Amino acid sequence: MKTEQPYLLTPGPITTTQSVKQAMLQDWGSWDADFRAMTARLCQRLVELIDGEGSHVCVPMQGSGTFAVEATLATLVPKEGKLLILMNGAYGQRMGKIMDYLGRDYVALDKGDYAPPRADEVEAMLAADPAITHVALVHCETSSGILNPVEEIAEVVARQGRRLIIDSMSAFGAVAISAKEVAFDALISSANKCFEGVPGFGFVLIRQSALEASKGNAHSLSMDLLDQWQYLAKTGQWRYTPPTHVVAAFLQALKEHAEEGGIAGRHARYQRNQQRLVAGMRQLGFETLLSDEWLSPIIITFFSPGHDSFDFQTFYDRMKARGFIIYPGKLTEAESFRLGCIGQLYDEQIDAVLEAVAAVLEEMGIPDGAPAHVLEAAASA
Amino acid sequence: MKTEQPYLLTPGPITTTQSVKQAMLQDWGSWDADFRAMTARLCQRLVELIDGEGSHVCVPMQGSGTFAVEATLATLVPKEGKLLILMNGAYGQRMGKIMDYLGRDYVALDKGDYAPPRADEVEAMLAADPAITHVALVHCETSSGILNPVEEIAEVVARQGRRLIIDSMSAFGAVAISAKEVAFDALISSANKCFEGVPGFGFVLIRQSALEASKGNAHSLSMDLLDQWQYLAKTGQWRYTPPTHVVAAFLQALKEHAEEGGIAGRHARYQRNQQRLVAGMRQLGFETLLSDEWLSPIIITFFSPGHDSFDFQTFYDRMKARGFIIYPGKLTEAESFRLGCIGQLYDEQIDAVLEAVAAVLEEMGIPDGAPAHVLEAAASA
Repeated sequence: MKTEQPYLLTPGPITTTQSVKQAMLQDWGSWDADFRAMTARLCQRLVELIDGEGSHVCVPMQGSGTFAVEATLATLVPKEGKLLILMNGAYGQRMGKIMDYLGRDYVALDKGDYAPPRADEVEAMLAADPAITHVALVHCETSSGILNPVEEIAEVVARQGRRLIIDSMSAFGAVAISAKEVAFDALISSANKCFEGVPGFGFVLIRQSALEASKGNAHSLSMDLLDQWQYLAKTGQWRYTPPTHVVAAFLQALKEHAEEGGIAGRHARYQRNQQRLVAGMRQLGFETLLSDEWLSPIIITFFSPGHDSFDFQTFYDRMKARGFIIYPGKLTEAESFRLGCIGQLYDEQIDAVLEAVAAVLEEMGIPDGAPAHVLEAAASA
Repeated sequence: MKTEQPYLLTPGPITTTQSVKQAMLQDWGSWDADFRAMTARLCQRLVELIDGEGSHVCVPMQGSGTFAVEATLATLVPKEGKLLILMNGAYGQRMGKIMDYLGRDYVALDKGDYAPPRADEVEAMLAADPAITHVALVHCETSSGILNPVEEIAEVVARQGRRLIIDSMSAFGAVAISAKEVAFDALISSANKCFEGVPGFGFVLIRQSALEASKGNAHSLSMDLLDQWQYLAKTGQWRYTPPTHVVAAFLQALKEHAEEGGIAGRHARYQRNQQRLVAGMRQLGFETLLSDEWLSPIIITFFSPGHDSFDFQTFYDRMKARGFIIYPGKLTEAESFRLGCIGQLYDEQIDAVLEAVAAVLEEMGIPDGAPAHVLEAAASA
């Protein structure tokens, strides 16, 4: 099977619909009323999707998702605050790096490559350290593909009277979260993940009272979420030039998201993709890093086959030749690769991926069921 | 005259070709070799355009142009450095705001709304204050439309042994500048101005030795140009998700820029647009803020007619109904508006703009030649 454009089996950018891309075939004046109305619709819809009316506001932020994460930490964690970062992969670690640049105090609960942070250990850390003001959690840590237990974490953070910041970059849009049920000050996401837009901006759904109390916190003019929000509220415009075409694509993506049944509909398709993919890969002899309980419907880590003929770059190139761009692994302790379930992927594409994997393994001389490089620890995780 | 999509007579986003927009009809994996090759071509071409091979490197930066300006000031001006900002409008003032956030020392030569900074006064300030390490200049200050005298400023900055940072956001691509003839450590620009790409990223052409010496300066992970460049040099990838579609559009825009004759060709068309527009507007009784010597081929400030029936919003709406989005003025001392000369505008469009202005004035009951709100000072500038 060969498509003209390879499918992206990655955690974003992902494969978008043609109609989303076609929404970019127009130029917009960012100062003009038409574009201001587009921005207003975008913000309103995102707040609705977390049941955030009356408590939370939407602040879009130019750049990649990391810009939105940095903007949020800098705007919400005061200079005299202290952040607890729940780490189990690259995105948690990156928050630590951001805090290093900011020169603000933080501590980490580092669970290594793939183990989830649990409520009891977070509660113990908060109880032992009253200086901690904020807790940051990565919703879906795409390093491993784990869906972290946001509800139980939110509950203990609230009970301990601290503020929660959720990096939901690769989960929001396909994993339901309600601000009425889960207490958080900020939920960060971006255009090009589960909403199936194209990359170019992120956004933060942020508790209005927390934002209003953040004056003087930000380290950066460009990334000051309070200033961005105040200007938007006053003028309807982004402070600095927005990626107009990317915003237009996102509005079309939001429309298609609603047509698919919103978050529930999107979740159902991704969940089905994940189950079909995992079942098929297991039949081919692959093993997942995580037990079923922790698998996200976003991206799955598979151990590479433990066979001398397996080489990731060759596997990648051959999969690409068959129309699929896969994603390298990020484990420190074992060879692995990742396959995404998000974007314009349906049963047909998942079946084609599985066929391609089988064919490539055969080309590479790797028999089905070659024992995988499984981590001892992972098997019991 | 009514076009389906209004022409943008603004300093960016501007009207792009259909082929530039069509380059966005594909999804790219940002990790993939095809996209890495696109990034490499982009950087190589931009370095060539300033004759920067061997001295300067290109560092792209996600976000709007302001993100690239902030990244440059933060990366190049050390914490113990001191910046002289040559201000004559909003973009110079914004650099001051950035320095306030950074908490780094600066001083301004503030020439008000539209007067150019001159070599002798800059040299006097540098001679009087040896603590100044860097000088920042806005190449074309779109607040007024003035093209600032970059060559004479660069000469005195070099003579005084200081480093020059040029914000050439709205000039580069249409105004020639050679790193072999003009000494600068950084030239900042963005995708959606004279290169006629779509908005979503900026870039900095930066002296490699200055960049290499900048370790520890940046205040922000996302905006650390040294880290961005080192990662790009090592992996061929942007550190964090690039706006892939916007990058693809920019490559097409670069191709069309070369086909038009590069910077010289683009300059010739914009210059012709400017002359045709200014001549026609003068015939309609409008006056420009600046004398011909200081007019840029980018954007022109016109005084609003000094007639009771003139109202900018009505003028704007009626021009938009005729297919043209114009730009408000930014002068503190007089009513004005701006018309851009950049983007997909040719003789035909300029003539149509002039026709539309004449028709709208008639609709608004404003006779040709109504005396403009001219500033006393401007007339002699």
